[in-house]
Amino acid sequence: MGLNRVGKRVDMRAVVLDERLSVVKDYPLPEIPPGWARIRVRMAGICGTDLELIKGYKGFKGVLGHEFVGVVDQCGIAEWVDKRVVGEINVSCGHCEWCRKRMDRHCPGRRVLGILGLDGCMADYLVLPVANLKEVPASVPDARAVFIEPLSAACEVLEQLILRGSERVVVLGDGRLGILCAWVLSTVVNDLTLVGHHPEKLERAKWRNLRIAKGCDEVKPHADVVVEATGSVTGLNDAMALCRPRGTLVLKSTMESKGDLNLAPIVVNEITLVGSRCGQFKDGIRLLRAYPDMPLGRLITNTYPVEEALRAFEQARQRESLKILLTF
Amino acid sequence: MGLNRVGKRVDMRAVVLDERLSVVKDYPLPEIPPGWARIRVRMAGICGTDLELIKGYKGFKGVLGHEFVGVVDQCGIAEWVDKRVVGEINVSCGHCEWCRKRMDRHCPGRRVLGILGLDGCMADYLVLPVANLKEVPASVPDARAVFIEPLSAACEVLEQLILRGSERVVVLGDGRLGILCAWVLSTVVNDLTLVGHHPEKLERAKWRNLRIAKGCDEVKPHADVVVEATGSVTGLNDAMALCRPRGTLVLKSTMESKGDLNLAPIVVNEITLVGSRCGQFKDGIRLLRAYPDMPLGRLITNTYPVEEALRAFEQARQRESLKILLTF
Repeated sequence: MGLNRVGKRVDMRAVVLDERLSVVKDYPLPEIPPGWARIRVRMAGICGTDLELIKGYKGFKGVLGHEFVGVVDQCGIAEWVDKRVVGEINVSCGHCEWCRKRMDRHCPGRRVLGILGLDGCMADYLVLPVANLKEVPASVPDARAVFIEPLSAACEVLEQLILRGSERVVVLGDGRLGILCAWVLSTVVNDLTLVGHHPEKLERAKWRNLRIAKGCDEVKPHADVVVEATGSVTGLNDAMALCRPRGTLVLKSTMESKGDLNLAPIVVNEITLVGSRCGQFKDGIRLLRAYPDMPLGRLITNTYPVEEALRAFEQARQRESLKILLTF
Repeated sequence: MGLNRVGKRVDMRAVVLDERLSVVKDYPLPEIPPGWARIRVRMAGICGTDLELIKGYKGFKGVLGHEFVGVVDQCGIAEWVDKRVVGEINVSCGHCEWCRKRMDRHCPGRRVLGILGLDGCMADYLVLPVANLKEVPASVPDARAVFIEPLSAACEVLEQLILRGSERVVVLGDGRLGILCAWVLSTVVNDLTLVGHHPEKLERAKWRNLRIAKGCDEVKPHADVVVEATGSVTGLNDAMALCRPRGTLVLKSTMESKGDLNLAPIVVNEITLVGSRCGQFKDGIRLLRAYPDMPLGRLITNTYPVEEALRAFEQARQRESLKILLTF
């Protein structure tokens, strides 16, 4: 463990992606820029995007991770110190055209926690601008708060579409994101079906009025809205086949899906395809408060101490896994 | 020439797609169902969809063609006889859910003139329901009226998007459809650029406030709306690259474009992709009346008598060609 001149710890444990993924014990403690806070991480989640980054997506190098809950350790603004927080992952420039339009999640100069130009949260400490922090309500335990980032991403669908509640909606994909999208949508629409291929995951997804279906053959076509959360070309083809003429197809997975893809149904049936990425944390937090019975615990396949992060990632890659968490 | 019992002509010239494309002289004259009209064709246009059908798209067999102007020859409703008309190409069932919702262009049981289950207009005569016919204003000559179908398809963009006029719009593709889309959009938006690779076609496209650009490098990125009318994977990739975050990308080409396609930019930039197909003829006709100076004549590369249809199709396949017409 490194020490600085006054005997304080200056390095930390971190899950680092370089040529390969490794857990290091002496990663330098991050500097705290003005207006930023340093956060001691308590829990972090492994996301599908992390697995893609390891495969080379976006060429990211550094500390992985963008889903966390932690406690503010150092901050120039004293009232933030010791607060339990989560953090919005896009660090935007704050003064460009997009930031001024409150589209800071699309700032072209943005850095993204553990994804683009900014070390992530799978470490003892991370730094983020104070503007990105949201205090976690005391009623929300860590193991639920760590879902605020992916839950907010699922809420983005509600921000982008105008849903009246009477639409027939189908979600494709029984992974973490698909189930979270289905749960978020179940708070708004009545006729909702989640389609997957893993009986055990589908069983865990059952909540409220959500219907589950094993494969698309069990689903009536001509859905008003189809949410694609499989990240596969097959899923997108299924989504186009299930969507009604002039219906809406939400593309929720950021995987780089290459391969043969015939978009003719989009044109012939005049489907509107909406790309959907990050959401606003206020929406995720609001939902956690409003639905304390949302069974997020069912999504946790396993929890590992950070030292065992490589084993954790190995399990996260298994098809039968849902959410894998790291503790610090 | 076949004659019936009372000495009337019972066969006709037609451009027929079977195993291959051919011009036949003895195609049977079509029967006239109740509520339908028989139309003597005066002029027909060759469309990109016709070229795709010849390559096997949708497996269509029969008389090709869906762009025409003609004169009603026989009809149970006497007032239609001798009227000069164009005809909407979708023949819907009239009583299903979609037809009742006035989405008859998406009726799942629809037949489509010269495209799906219904002989087309590249023949001396065609039949269509009277409900599909629109009288051509006397001020519009045949060589302009024959553009009403593709012009209406271009107008569909205005039906689907809410444009305020202040948007920056880019149209990709200097083919027939791209130019028509650009002309239609130029009647609504101020900042409009057509991107192509054929200097001669781009020169012909100049009209009103439309700017032209040779290749995407000449275009500022972050357009509010991008219309893809090249029908190629390259075009779609360019469109994604030019579209601003949360912008709109209109997919206008029905070609079956297969190949490597990375849709990640749609998700990351939360682009809305809108598939767009046929329009309403009332819009195309309204535009022709409102803009008698729209230089449609510049789009006519050549006109052939129907007997020379094979030569006409050969020229239509050339990259430098714009619209090829057939006369009867």
